Amino acid sequence: MRRTVREMLNKFTPAQIITGYYLLAVSASVILLSLPIAHKEGVHVPFMDTLFTAISAVSVTGLTVINISDTYSTIGIFILMFVLQFGGIGVMTLGTFFWMLLRKKIGLKERQLIMLDHNQSHLSGLVQLIREIIKLILIIELVGAIVLTLQLHQYFPTWKDAFVHGLFASISATTNGGFDLSGNSLVPYKDDYFIQLVNIILITLGAIGFPVLIEVKNYLFPKNPGKLFRFSLFTKLTSLTFGLLLLFGTVSIIIIESNHYFIGMNWHQIFFNAFFHSASTRSGGLATMDLNDYTMGTLVIFCILMFIGASPSSVGGGIRTTTFALNLLFIYHYANGNRHIKIFKREIHEEDIIKSMVVTILAFCLCFIATVILCITEDAPLIKILFEVCSAFGTTGLSLGLTPELSGVGKCVIMILMFIGRIGLTSFIYIIGGKEKKDNFHYPKERIIIG
Amino acid sequence: MRRTVREMLNKFTPAQIITGYYLLAVSASVILLSLPIAHKEGVHVPFMDTLFTAISAVSVTGLTVINISDTYSTIGIFILMFVLQFGGIGVMTLGTFFWMLLRKKIGLKERQLIMLDHNQSHLSGLVQLIREIIKLILIIELVGAIVLTLQLHQYFPTWKDAFVHGLFASISATTNGGFDLSGNSLVPYKDDYFIQLVNIILITLGAIGFPVLIEVKNYLFPKNPGKLFRFSLFTKLTSLTFGLLLLFGTVSIIIIESNHYFIGMNWHQIFFNAFFHSASTRSGGLATMDLNDYTMGTLVIFCILMFIGASPSSVGGGIRTTTFALNLLFIYHYANGNRHIKIFKREIHEEDIIKSMVVTILAFCLCFIATVILCITEDAPLIKILFEVCSAFGTTGLSLGLTPELSGVGKCVIMILMFIGRIGLTSFIYIIGGKEKKDNFHYPKERIIIG
Ligand SMILES: [K+]
Ligand SMILES: [K+]
Repeated sequence: MRRTVREMLNKFTPAQIITGYYLLAVSASVILLSLPIAHKEGVHVPFMDTLFTAISAVSVTGLTVINISDTYSTIGIFILMFVLQFGGIGVMTLGTFFWMLLRKKIGLKERQLIMLDHNQSHLSGLVQLIREIIKLILIIELVGAIVLTLQLHQYFPTWKDAFVHGLFASISATTNGGFDLSGNSLVPYKDDYFIQLVNIILITLGAIGFPVLIEVKNYLFPKNPGKLFRFSLFTKLTSLTFGLLLLFGTVSIIIIESNHYFIGMNWHQIFFNAFFHSASTRSGGLATMDLNDYTMGTLVIFCILMFIGASPSSVGGGIRTTTFALNLLFIYHYANGNRHIKIFKREIHEEDIIKSMVVTILAFCLCFIATVILCITEDAPLIKILFEVCSAFGTTGLSLGLTPELSGVGKCVIMILMFIGRIGLTSFIYIIGGKEKKDNFHYPKERIIIG
Repeated sequence: MRRTVREMLNKFTPAQIITGYYLLAVSASVILLSLPIAHKEGVHVPFMDTLFTAISAVSVTGLTVINISDTYSTIGIFILMFVLQFGGIGVMTLGTFFWMLLRKKIGLKERQLIMLDHNQSHLSGLVQLIREIIKLILIIELVGAIVLTLQLHQYFPTWKDAFVHGLFASISATTNGGFDLSGNSLVPYKDDYFIQLVNIILITLGAIGFPVLIEVKNYLFPKNPGKLFRFSLFTKLTSLTFGLLLLFGTVSIIIIESNHYFIGMNWHQIFFNAFFHSASTRSGGLATMDLNDYTMGTLVIFCILMFIGASPSSVGGGIRTTTFALNLLFIYHYANGNRHIKIFKREIHEEDIIKSMVVTILAFCLCFIATVILCITEDAPLIKILFEVCSAFGTTGLSLGLTPELSGVGKCVIMILMFIGRIGLTSFIYIIGGKEKKDNFHYPKERIIIG
């Protein structure tokens, strides 16, 4: 096993490995979901729709062109749960691993500041890392499933039904899968704040990023109790951004909808509605209402929140929280005539700043091209199209109802966006890029006028 | 005069001077356009609408909440022509001048490569520069006015009427003002290809950037005939981008509309319709049809074309052609593992690359915020709002008809966008930025995960 991993790492780039894993997982999912045993009797799913479901599941997006509970048998539903696991945990594991490899290349002084378990960044630590991630996620999912089953029992005739729904809901929330068995997301539980709260917690644990989870674990259960624990800059920055986006979303929805959708509601209905859907845009993709009932201001804000997405090395997509944070921090510092971002008593590396800007602009370009194509192929208002595009790129899975009506070309565009959103633009850049060219010569530099 | 200029340059930053000029021009315009003599009898214009017209004219955008020919008397129309001149030429002159000052700070070797008349970059050259710009623009406008008057005579009963319309049309096109006396843009001339062609040429001459005009002039009429003339990197890059955007717009419109708006038209109607409106998005703002007749795919492409806008140091707005070009070039080079953009046997300065990305991301943020606000305050489909936002930021002046229906808040948002679009985001960044802080200390650098 170790030798294979070492060979693989020498032969392929991280981007190629992540992409390869993704494509393998999609192929396996298509085969599994095509098994007759996976379908309810008499249900036929066209290949295109199975492919769409598989890509949506592996990228843990949750956009569906079919109704899950009407289409798949109990076995099919269990297959779907496995696919979500492999999609959610797999890419997250690989992402975290390569991040740890990258850090090994950094100078000794900087490395000493990183308090994450260094053993993991050794090649031999890959197996241990995967084991640790899977253990952590499974514990979270199991606890979630038990809690949800206990609460869901009042909605279902048998414990078995409650358990299947509870388990599926827990996995769907933790992996930010966004799939549902109700055929109508969490709308049936729109007054059950307990279920909503459990879902918010599970979504957040999945979307906050694995490095954050493991650092918090190490903080709570230290291996060297006497030693001072320091959270990494990444954990601080991504958690802060995540929290601020959650707050921004909640407050925005409350303000904008107070004169529209929230008229006649009491405070806890308003708060839970706003808080749940703000959390859902991080990449959860669940909803307790028909989002078409929101006004356009809220929906446009949802678009940008989904576009930003979740933390890196998480189950979510989008340009990622840190990318967004660096953009804003750099613009602020740049306007003040300063090129160095200082935050949490650390300085951001120039490479990361440039990468964050490249990722953002490229993401804008991709989403723009996708929007134009959908505007041509679909007959729908711009807001529905833009919402669908941002939802796919952010692997969020929220929709204004366009997904089942998509044309063939439209489905392809959304599938590509889910794929790119899931593997992340950094990987995508390496895929589209050619081989590194040595340029040992230089032309004279010449200034030009900008903006 | 010279001493005043010198004192002014020492006391204020370029951004402050450009902004100050702009605000002064707006104030003067508001006063002039409020004169009773400027209005037709019995017409009353609310202050807000006069302010909107003044800002629209000084920023040579052309969005109007009122009908120009129904509102203003012949004297008012002449006032408007003057305002367009001061708006268009003024900011262009200042922009070019500061660009020349900036270049003086560049090393001798690089400067030698720039074949533009160096005398202009001396302080004493300001007056000469302004004179040269004004001379060039006035010649262009005069030739345009004569040609248009001759052609327009067939549409008007008297030579006087034809001349007023011809002169106004020429100034409006050359300064990319986008205003019209017909109340319906160039729709009355939708079959007059000659008028359209003259307009395209005038729009392009205004939008291609003054440094390009003067280099072409120096190339055609060299001061030292024996010497080899070399166009600057800026001229090459901005002209190439300008041309490619023009081509991209034309081809896109033809492809997308071939199954919709262009059904039943012959080839020259199709070509002129597509070519004219593609040129108009560079910042001209004139139209020969109701743009609502285009399909949404075309309109979304118009949004991005207007967002990109014209060349720097021109009469246009937006993020500017060079900013867009550097973004694409850098993403391409970055994906290939290369940080140096080599083009036309020159290398782009890192500063310019970073600036171009900052400008682009900030522009996205601004347009997004504006869109959200308009989504809340206006009752219109997203495409109309986005179109209006991009049109204002690009100082293009095309509209799907939302402008006259704008609420008070909506008018303010559009006015701010026209202002920022006109002075350019580089100036805007310096305005919002604080004083430069010396940071002589550094924290340790720490890597984080991006995208
Ligand atoms: K999701
Ligand atoms: K214009």
